[in-house]
Amino acid sequence: MSSPERQLHLAAFVTAGPGRPGGWRHPDSVSDWRSAAYYQRIGRTLERAKFDLIFFADILAVPYRYGDSLDPQLRYGALGSMRLDPTPVLGTIAGVTEHLGLAATVSTTYVEPFAVARSFATLDHLSNGRSAWNIVTSFQDAEARNFGKDSHLDRAQRYRRAEEFLQVTAKLWDSWEDDALVLDPQVPVFADPERVHRVDHHGEWFDVQGPLNVARPPQGYPVLIQAGASPSGRDFAARWADVIFCSHASLDAAKDFYADIKGRAAAHGRDPGQIKILPAITPVVAETTEAAKEKTRRLADLVVAEAGLSTLSYHLDIDLAPFPHDEALPEMDVPGVQGHYEEVRELTEKHGMTLRELGKQYGGTHEGDFSGTPSEVADTLEQWFTEGGCDGFTVSAVYQPGAFDEFGEQVVPHLQKRGLFRTQYTGSTLRDNLGLDRPASGDWRKRAVHEEGR
Amino acid sequence: MSSPERQLHLAAFVTAGPGRPGGWRHPDSVSDWRSAAYYQRIGRTLERAKFDLIFFADILAVPYRYGDSLDPQLRYGALGSMRLDPTPVLGTIAGVTEHLGLAATVSTTYVEPFAVARSFATLDHLSNGRSAWNIVTSFQDAEARNFGKDSHLDRAQRYRRAEEFLQVTAKLWDSWEDDALVLDPQVPVFADPERVHRVDHHGEWFDVQGPLNVARPPQGYPVLIQAGASPSGRDFAARWADVIFCSHASLDAAKDFYADIKGRAAAHGRDPGQIKILPAITPVVAETTEAAKEKTRRLADLVVAEAGLSTLSYHLDIDLAPFPHDEALPEMDVPGVQGHYEEVRELTEKHGMTLRELGKQYGGTHEGDFSGTPSEVADTLEQWFTEGGCDGFTVSAVYQPGAFDEFGEQVVPHLQKRGLFRTQYTGSTLRDNLGLDRPASGDWRKRAVHEEGR
Repeated sequence: MSSPERQLHLAAFVTAGPGRPGGWRHPDSVSDWRSAAYYQRIGRTLERAKFDLIFFADILAVPYRYGDSLDPQLRYGALGSMRLDPTPVLGTIAGVTEHLGLAATVSTTYVEPFAVARSFATLDHLSNGRSAWNIVTSFQDAEARNFGKDSHLDRAQRYRRAEEFLQVTAKLWDSWEDDALVLDPQVPVFADPERVHRVDHHGEWFDVQGPLNVARPPQGYPVLIQAGASPSGRDFAARWADVIFCSHASLDAAKDFYADIKGRAAAHGRDPGQIKILPAITPVVAETTEAAKEKTRRLADLVVAEAGLSTLSYHLDIDLAPFPHDEALPEMDVPGVQGHYEEVRELTEKHGMTLRELGKQYGGTHEGDFSGTPSEVADTLEQWFTEGGCDGFTVSAVYQPGAFDEFGEQVVPHLQKRGLFRTQYTGSTLRDNLGLDRPASGDWRKRAVHEEGR
Repeated sequence: MSSPERQLHLAAFVTAGPGRPGGWRHPDSVSDWRSAAYYQRIGRTLERAKFDLIFFADILAVPYRYGDSLDPQLRYGALGSMRLDPTPVLGTIAGVTEHLGLAATVSTTYVEPFAVARSFATLDHLSNGRSAWNIVTSFQDAEARNFGKDSHLDRAQRYRRAEEFLQVTAKLWDSWEDDALVLDPQVPVFADPERVHRVDHHGEWFDVQGPLNVARPPQGYPVLIQAGASPSGRDFAARWADVIFCSHASLDAAKDFYADIKGRAAAHGRDPGQIKILPAITPVVAETTEAAKEKTRRLADLVVAEAGLSTLSYHLDIDLAPFPHDEALPEMDVPGVQGHYEEVRELTEKHGMTLRELGKQYGGTHEGDFSGTPSEVADTLEQWFTEGGCDGFTVSAVYQPGAFDEFGEQVVPHLQKRGLFRTQYTGSTLRDNLGLDRPASGDWRKRAVHEEGR
């Protein structure tokens, strides 16, 4: 068994709810996705398979972008119909795992930086250095309307706010120096007041005095994850992110994105090796190639076209209901997730799909073709990894939790045999396992485009 | 063993941090209060002792009310020097317990009702009906300054906002009817769109469209806890609260409060039996009466006077640093917690304490005298319970977690032998265990003083 220095990393993309639009209908899917036991089971499965982290998506509303209606969304269980708050869910997993990284998606648009900095610092302490924050800026009007606004901020404003938000959270994590907590019962000294500092941030969006009421996280900062695909998103991610989550329909698209992000990071003075790019995949594994294709078809059959289109409408932030469902998706500018649009255009052109067919497909799998026997799937992953498409993968399940069991038990051993993936955890924190340096106090200044506030 | 119909209820008051000002110095206190294991251990201890619930206090800042300085606060580990976010902490406990209620303190002043409604609905699903929300309105400028404000809202404004906040969260919990989630994979129907409703709330403080993206909590609403001691606080609590947390220096004071709240509830048309009043106690248990007194003195010795006065300054929202520490606490109007002021005035008068002595005492125990042998402590609890002082107690630990072990192992068996406390859990939700009805959809209208918004 060879053991090359560069190994790939694995994240699991999980929804704290019923999962993919057709997934809840699958006979192997478990329906107790409201219970702590369900998430603890997934966490244990992933830790057994030596995954780097579990990653919870989020949305702050039931989407109703398709047909401007909640009806198809709720009726067919489109993505986001029901979604638990990921933070307490991660708490349940933190308590029964030892190595698995714990990532929650939290928007910078509808909450305050003090609350977010504190929540992740808490999770990092509770888990002994395993927390990660997937930073999103939110682009659904449905979300804005649950938080006192008529419509979402435009992209430029969202990223300006996100920039300042990140600076404030980093200042709060740094407000306790690493050795500020003394805990000497004799003197007595609980914390050294000389090593705890107010933040006194006053900027365009935020005024925060500080200090945080939690000591500096074991990891310094939680692992920062971002998924920007637009030019402003890519720039933000190249500066701030430790891990980048993306989505591509082909290896060529993945390579272009990978080279672009690593270049942007280097241009900003960062070590490109300190950013891990983990594209989403939705593997479908079976005993034979043909059986995997058949399984993919059966999975697509479980998706009501309207459910897939409802999810796609929300991802693209475009109402697809008025477009003819027997014709192809037309070319358009999308205000939503650029990466998803590029994927579905590529799918549409390659397979000549109608909008209805696209809906059924999109609700099942859509990130390239990662179906086949376990060995074939491992081949594809190896190719993407070795040919400069990625640093690892974010594995999504067509049905939860079964597809994670299959991937962990069937595909991971192939990756391990090839020396591409760990057989045991070696680090003590998530940053260690990902090969990321621990940020020193003030590290955020290297990531900020310019300092906001004073 | 007799088993009278009326049994008392027990909550445990826990800080997600080092606990009482002197507690962290105690040799039996455990210093890993940053780890999930610490909280899981407390949760298991309380469940073994058949407690109704664990209740986490909170504050959104390091207080600096004493001497307008962080220094004594941090140096001596006064209450609130470090405090983890209770929500992920409760997640870790939810995953390893089956019966224990899980209460977090969340302020209505610095967050949005959608986020709070969702977080508690999530916890209620994850724990199968065990969540509780301790509603506070926040009165520290230190908190305001971490959330973009110069100073905290005045009491009238805070309670107006809290009133509307509660109405919005209740509307969101009701936005899914109890049977809205259908989960029929054949038809298919995920949720019945006819039974999920927008909220469309537009009020003085909040505009929220809804619906919530989480189905109605198993308990209907989480158990609502409140601690108002001022007249506006009492009125709010009598209308909204299922459980009332309070603090009294004597049984007489407890009886007055108890009668007042039950009267206010009845005047508002509520069944007074549906409000459980659980005053705080800080028991000190030892083998003999004299040993318990000596233990109390030793505990007070661990408290640096400045640490106790720092905590008291924050509770009263008055800077006590300028007052002569060798004289008694003068009479004054306090903007902070009325109940705490009444307690310390009673202590000061009874024992002729100087401010410095009061500081040492306040950092240890201050809620009446619940020290003695296990049987003597049980006597006092029985007296308070049977003479109309309370429906049970909120037990605070002089040192965490040891004092909870002692209470559970030594005092609880006496209460059980006397038929005053359960020997096993009989309900399936926290509401069941507390003897509280499950609120039907729309129940909040009976609690609201008048409907805010439209």
